Amino acid sequence: MSMNSFGHLFRFTTWGESHGPALGATVDGCPPGIEIDESMLQVWLDKRKPGTSKYTTQRREADQVEILSGVFEGKTTGTPIQLMIRNTDQRSKDYGEIAQAFRPGHADITYFQKYGIRDYRGGGRSSARETAARVAAGGIARAVLAQLAPTVEIKGYMTQIGPHGIDGPRDMAEIDNNPFWVPSAATAATWATYLDGIRKSGSSVGAVCEVMCTGVPAGLGAPIYAKLDTDLAAAMMSINAVKGVEIGEGMNAACLTGEENADEMRMGPNGPEFGSNHAGGILGGISTGQDLIVRFAVKPTSSILTPRQTIDKDGKDIDLITKGRHDPCVGIRAVPVGEAMMACVVLDHLLLHRGQVGDGPRGHIGGKTQ
Amino acid sequence: MSMNSFGHLFRFTTWGESHGPALGATVDGCPPGIEIDESMLQVWLDKRKPGTSKYTTQRREADQVEILSGVFEGKTTGTPIQLMIRNTDQRSKDYGEIAQAFRPGHADITYFQKYGIRDYRGGGRSSARETAARVAAGGIARAVLAQLAPTVEIKGYMTQIGPHGIDGPRDMAEIDNNPFWVPSAATAATWATYLDGIRKSGSSVGAVCEVMCTGVPAGLGAPIYAKLDTDLAAAMMSINAVKGVEIGEGMNAACLTGEENADEMRMGPNGPEFGSNHAGGILGGISTGQDLIVRFAVKPTSSILTPRQTIDKDGKDIDLITKGRHDPCVGIRAVPVGEAMMACVVLDHLLLHRGQVGDGPRGHIGGKTQ
Amino acid sequence: MSMNSFGHLFRFTTWGESHGPALGATVDGCPPGIEIDESMLQVWLDKRKPGTSKYTTQRREADQVEILSGVFEGKTTGTPIQLMIRNTDQRSKDYGEIAQAFRPGHADITYFQKYGIRDYRGGGRSSARETAARVAAGGIARAVLAQLAPTVEIKGYMTQIGPHGIDGPRDMAEIDNNPFWVPSAATAATWATYLDGIRKSGSSVGAVCEVMCTGVPAGLGAPIYAKLDTDLAAAMMSINAVKGVEIGEGMNAACLTGEENADEMRMGPNGPEFGSNHAGGILGGISTGQDLIVRFAVKPTSSILTPRQTIDKDGKDIDLITKGRHDPCVGIRAVPVGEAMMACVVLDHLLLHRGQVGDGPRGHIGGKTQ
Amino acid sequence: MSMNSFGHLFRFTTWGESHGPALGATVDGCPPGIEIDESMLQVWLDKRKPGTSKYTTQRREADQVEILSGVFEGKTTGTPIQLMIRNTDQRSKDYGEIAQAFRPGHADITYFQKYGIRDYRGGGRSSARETAARVAAGGIARAVLAQLAPTVEIKGYMTQIGPHGIDGPRDMAEIDNNPFWVPSAATAATWATYLDGIRKSGSSVGAVCEVMCTGVPAGLGAPIYAKLDTDLAAAMMSINAVKGVEIGEGMNAACLTGEENADEMRMGPNGPEFGSNHAGGILGGISTGQDLIVRFAVKPTSSILTPRQTIDKDGKDIDLITKGRHDPCVGIRAVPVGEAMMACVVLDHLLLHRGQVGDGPRGHIGGKTQ
Repeated sequence: MSMNSFGHLFRFTTWGESHGPALGATVDGCPPGIEIDESMLQVWLDKRKPGTSKYTTQRREADQVEILSGVFEGKTTGTPIQLMIRNTDQRSKDYGEIAQAFRPGHADITYFQKYGIRDYRGGGRSSARETAARVAAGGIARAVLAQLAPTVEIKGYMTQIGPHGIDGPRDMAEIDNNPFWVPSAATAATWATYLDGIRKSGSSVGAVCEVMCTGVPAGLGAPIYAKLDTDLAAAMMSINAVKGVEIGEGMNAACLTGEENADEMRMGPNGPEFGSNHAGGILGGISTGQDLIVRFAVKPTSSILTPRQTIDKDGKDIDLITKGRHDPCVGIRAVPVGEAMMACVVLDHLLLHRGQVGDGPRGHIGGKTQ
Repeated sequence: MSMNSFGHLFRFTTWGESHGPALGATVDGCPPGIEIDESMLQVWLDKRKPGTSKYTTQRREADQVEILSGVFEGKTTGTPIQLMIRNTDQRSKDYGEIAQAFRPGHADITYFQKYGIRDYRGGGRSSARETAARVAAGGIARAVLAQLAPTVEIKGYMTQIGPHGIDGPRDMAEIDNNPFWVPSAATAATWATYLDGIRKSGSSVGAVCEVMCTGVPAGLGAPIYAKLDTDLAAAMMSINAVKGVEIGEGMNAACLTGEENADEMRMGPNGPEFGSNHAGGILGGISTGQDLIVRFAVKPTSSILTPRQTIDKDGKDIDLITKGRHDPCVGIRAVPVGEAMMACVVLDHLLLHRGQVGDGPRGHIGGKTQ
Repeated sequence: MSMNSFGHLFRFTTWGESHGPALGATVDGCPPGIEIDESMLQVWLDKRKPGTSKYTTQRREADQVEILSGVFEGKTTGTPIQLMIRNTDQRSKDYGEIAQAFRPGHADITYFQKYGIRDYRGGGRSSARETAARVAAGGIARAVLAQLAPTVEIKGYMTQIGPHGIDGPRDMAEIDNNPFWVPSAATAATWATYLDGIRKSGSSVGAVCEVMCTGVPAGLGAPIYAKLDTDLAAAMMSINAVKGVEIGEGMNAACLTGEENADEMRMGPNGPEFGSNHAGGILGGISTGQDLIVRFAVKPTSSILTPRQTIDKDGKDIDLITKGRHDPCVGIRAVPVGEAMMACVVLDHLLLHRGQVGDGPRGHIGGKTQ
Repeated sequence: MSMNSFGHLFRFTTWGESHGPALGATVDGCPPGIEIDESMLQVWLDKRKPGTSKYTTQRREADQVEILSGVFEGKTTGTPIQLMIRNTDQRSKDYGEIAQAFRPGHADITYFQKYGIRDYRGGGRSSARETAARVAAGGIARAVLAQLAPTVEIKGYMTQIGPHGIDGPRDMAEIDNNPFWVPSAATAATWATYLDGIRKSGSSVGAVCEVMCTGVPAGLGAPIYAKLDTDLAAAMMSINAVKGVEIGEGMNAACLTGEENADEMRMGPNGPEFGSNHAGGILGGISTGQDLIVRFAVKPTSSILTPRQTIDKDGKDIDLITKGRHDPCVGIRAVPVGEAMMACVVLDHLLLHRGQVGDGPRGHIGGKTQ
């Protein structure tokens, strides 16, 4: 029971604080013989790293990942892979006041209440910098999936920022063309204006991210308490600032009747074909073969320039503003984190399924059991 | 790694199928010396059991729980507690057609695709009957909490059915006075009329349930991957038919600004006092001492009388209606299940915290570290 | 973290006390589609059950196992298998004195010290009756191995009782012909005379059991902390009364030089052939393809008729003799338990290997990597 | 399920290969507020490190440990502690031949058979260098024990080398005065002569190490499958080259009668007093309060200068000698590793006990339940 570990067979443990010497992930259970090098991980870290647009924190971190173990002559060996990222831009002086005070809506107070001690520099362990380690681990998962399940593709994007959803139809080709990873050029423009205002006022705002995974084989997920949707919900809820997780219809499923919600099927040349995907690709905790659809809501950053009422360690009432370099919408940088978690969960369940059920035997519709 | 187990230190494993001889839960890690008898568990099982109103399935199950181990002379001994519930009303003949066909929106197809074999009688392992075992385990957790953390109180209720939310102000005293556990007498009347229509048409509808836990000590939750909200999200998402989970503001957190979302604090006589609870009682994965608020959406039952397009094991296209005794709104019976999962998660984290941090040392605001 | 669970992917949780209504095992992670019925488990339980010869306790237990879940139409479904054994011959009145006193060399005192409460009837949870549940779980493992790895064969036997080892050469065909499962007819006769004396004097004696597993594929075992030998050591040490575990040469490895200990190899038609097996079939925690050899020492039963100095719950010094029906050499009945644990460990690692590495890719000597 | 992790609540994951850039341990679950600095760990690493006498490998490793996370202003914060040790003296050129050949009695062949790829440099992941990471983690455990259970003391020593046991009575004060950590000056002199001969002939030899832990509270250990002795057996068997583990009487328990084996008790002023300790301080998997006694046998190093018959990757029969810098008796350096594992297991069970049972309630002999 590692409280800082995630996954069953493909399992990573993250470690490190925002302003300590380094942070990273210890990845255990990776299959052997997979080609990996640091550049394959760096591409995902670069997507998450701060300072890439004016809409993310201006902290400058190289986020350069080093592989310290588990890879030999360019291939994984089946032993633990240690991924280390040095912290380089730690302006700890920015955090003087935070050492004594508790930001409202931040983990400052709970870490103190739990442990009686906290590394207050940059949020310490509760900082979103921890997610860099997840993105690195997710890079490993993607490389394994590329070999073991090459049909799998994972794509994350934003679907809402503050009160603004996506205007008009989605165009997935637009995702990489704007700083919000929103699948709509027009929407990106609207959001840019909106978020500029938020940023300039020293405020912050929440967001909704969605991650889609296509090409997943049917049969992944281990009922009852390691269901695919259970693990995805845990994966996404564990990301900093996430307050809600939805699969397929999500909270809206409450509004539907049984007739509306049923994803009807007809037999196609390659297996069942579905007329809709209210289920988000998961029934009874097991993948149907349809696209996996997960959404999560990210609350606004608690570090804002407007004074808020709070208390300090001495129990004194104070009014606090948080200076420093913060994200006006931390949801933006949550997109690659959500993708990484999706990759880890899907790979983990692929290995779990292979372990319990094997590559071979499985129900074959319209034929005999394979 | 038990795929049918839940929890870290307080850990239960459920087993059993809808129409097998019995089902139950093996509860491990229960503290010793706690007074338990079967009647203390039965009260919760009676709340969940089918056939208590016309709005739940008319299957008649006594749901009588037997304690087979781990309790001696009325007290827990610290060893595993086996809770068994015999299945008594299994009209397997109702399920002839289901043996060959896959209900749209049901786990029929995914269990078959995963395992190549499934106990189709009543949904087998994927049936919501599994949740009876959780409710029994939750009864154990409640008894332990009553002794170790007597301030803790857990209350579940519905907040939405189909498109209908709660009309007017909430009155928590009304929860036990209506078949929906909705905190509003007027709303209960509206919902009754609505659900009668759904039931008579052989349809079904979704719902939203909320579980509140008051009196929780600050400091519970084990970052990063055993956060209190992470475990609650997994707990609720693992319940049959759940498609979304929210903590505090939930998905709506996306719409808020940092100013709105900050739960401001002032120092009170007994510690911090909060002006609001957007966080749902959890910051950075750790409890603040405020009320825990969790919501989850339950999709409509897939068993309906309107024919739906689907396929059978032979890959033939068919139109299917599902006869038998089903819940028009399975969300109703999910309320006590949500309560049980809340009890298990809170107790588990109480024990985890005691293990790692101890009863004593903890940050004390306005004083020295205890 | 279930403290009463064993295994990684194939994982069982045992529950129940010696004189409670029942005991059993919850088996999770069993592959689907395996033919199982109660008679296949009963054969192993009958081997372990008390009262089969005058050398084992005269308690009469049918040890009849019931399968309550996870098997449908004669085949496993991939869901948890609940195995229940009713206790039938509980003469609790025999245990009046034990309720207050602590037998020297018995878990009476430690359970009390740990939990402050104990089910003293027949040793409660610390009774060797718990091992009946393991034997049932081991029966499942054997059935799975028979299908997934049909070359695997497991055989346990005794190699020492008190000071007496095996006289003369081993004859494995004799194992099932005597009550000691000793591979030597002559030795069985000597031991019978010896143990008769022990039994009649109301004393007890220790033993050494060995379990051999042949036909194991090379490559099983998950370094560093789930090594095959690590898990076997844990498996055997967890059996009641075991005080030592050896792999291959075991403690005697200390006496050898590097030259003596090296199991030399030559290439044979089907792979490496070894000139010796000091390693007991395991190198670096991974199987070599040779026979697995595990031995464990079982201490004498603490329940004897000679008075021993001890104390009671009130802290009074007393002299205690233990009446009732006890085993003069509990090591005899540990043989089928050791076999069951071997079966579970080997299957578990077969599934783990399949999960992480797959059925296919593996180093192929004298050829390319498969 | 991390295959490279050990422990339940206090849990560490080791990573790294003999000749990679670094190795280390990720320690999770450490209580907060414990004073730790690198020098407190270095003292134990220095005890284990190579090159300290002519009886250990002449490889020169600084084995300097760096703390990368989890410690703030000199105290643990309750978050993961990353311990990194850089590899500095990697003469990889020594290992040219090993890349193609399999040393008899070494993990070379099994890693290849399992994974199809191996880091052959210095044994890669199977090298005893991995144990440096355990020693560092053990240093953390010792620091925590010093604060939570200050009576606990752990001492390891050798009791046998090749055929030579300890001559005459034990003198624990001598342990730190000789390179073998043997509690007898006279024996140390005999062993020195013996091992010099082994070393000069390019051979190697096995050994037995014993680790004693005094001052352990009664009640630690979590039956049935996380028994204190089960976890100690797993801990020690997981150390490289260990082939046997004994608790108390160990394998010799087979020779005893029930009368001999009973550790008789009388009530003393502070609780039960025992007349002997055949049990090694553990009954029913739970500590009695007596000294914990664990022994393990270490096989001789497989790297020797005498040619042995073996095969290479191409399946060719070859005769192999292993040059390079090796330990004539690797058992010597296993002593601090055994101590580290003991510290980790005892702390882990202290936390587990505190979690399930609490600091307070426990059976009190001669009084009421606390």
